[in-house]
Amino acid sequence: VERTVAEQPLKIDFYFDFASPYAWLISDRLEQLAARYQREVVWRPVLLFAIFKAVGLPAPMETDAKRKYMLHDMERSARYYGVPYRHPANFPAISPVPGRLFYGLAEREPAQAKAFARQALRAHFVDGKDITRPEVVAEIAGEAGIPASSVEAALTGERGKSLLRESIENATRRGVIGSPFVIVDDEPFFGADRLDHIEWWLNSQTRVEA
Amino acid sequence: VERTVAEQPLKIDFYFDFASPYAWLISDRLEQLAARYQREVVWRPVLLFAIFKAVGLPAPMETDAKRKYMLHDMERSARYYGVPYRHPANFPAISPVPGRLFYGLAEREPAQAKAFARQALRAHFVDGKDITRPEVVAEIAGEAGIPASSVEAALTGERGKSLLRESIENATRRGVIGSPFVIVDDEPFFGADRLDHIEWWLNSQTRVEA
Repeated sequence: VERTVAEQPLKIDFYFDFASPYAWLISDRLEQLAARYQREVVWRPVLLFAIFKAVGLPAPMETDAKRKYMLHDMERSARYYGVPYRHPANFPAISPVPGRLFYGLAEREPAQAKAFARQALRAHFVDGKDITRPEVVAEIAGEAGIPASSVEAALTGERGKSLLRESIENATRRGVIGSPFVIVDDEPFFGADRLDHIEWWLNSQTRVEA
Repeated sequence: VERTVAEQPLKIDFYFDFASPYAWLISDRLEQLAARYQREVVWRPVLLFAIFKAVGLPAPMETDAKRKYMLHDMERSARYYGVPYRHPANFPAISPVPGRLFYGLAEREPAQAKAFARQALRAHFVDGKDITRPEVVAEIAGEAGIPASSVEAALTGERGKSLLRESIENATRRGVIGSPFVIVDDEPFFGADRLDHIEWWLNSQTRVEA
């Protein structure tokens, strides 16, 4: 039994909003980094507007000067990281539909849920798909290889909805203040620009344990 | 005459608040980066609270969840960058005193003004000096090698005050939304974590011109 427990890979919690460009910009590189450190990335979609409301933060896009800078930085950061990016026409999108679908799949088929999430970020930020529309989101799930019956059940069931709400509460309790927000064990990292810090931190942990 | 103009080094504008930890964390490395690209860093202290008020942004430290994360990230970022850092007892400080002194010196003695600014960031973020107190700020200027008579004139004169106000208006017009905020030609970069992006951008400019 102990051997089985020890073989459970350590996790990295990846809190994000499906409508967050910086989440898309970090997602593949975070998976690659985690793989190098034998960690498993646990994708945890949330609705940022609900977190902002809960902790009393204004949405960054509400202020003209900040919105202008961020729109510029998003596109430039994509070029800097070499990640394909096309700014979505409906931005920022409200993302309960992919959130519900994700959690509707996650309990029974976590690999399917993650495959859907990766496909949804790409579809939204590269192909311009509107992730607020259930029929578009169902199509994206189909492209990720998820059977139509599972998609339908996950989209319409109550379980995905309640798990999304629980995840938002959990994120708020853990201090999530934006997207992407990565928690390694209990160490929090906010932003697409914290990947080097995360790697430095993982290295320092390894050294301590060795 | 054309030769003289061509020999003027290109600039990098460094907008910052004397009370900003992330400004301290980037300042030395920004100078080193600029030197590698034959650029001159023009230090432009501002008062962040005045900019936030002008553009309608709340101070990030106002929200509990964000303050908690940022305080943690400031100390961790200092360790990550290898920059000495001790969180000041009075934080965030209001910084008109060093701002006025800086601009009081800057017109006639720009090198002295920069030497003072570097010393002030170090004194505040390493030695815990209270930069809200004129006598402490005058002492810091003395340590930076600035004659007492110049310090006294700069601290009490109206010129420093009006230039600080002009600099805040200029920063607001140029889209500054926080500290540090670096503008290379017209390209804006916000945050201590954008140095790699700045270098990438400088490289791309060099390639275009070559």
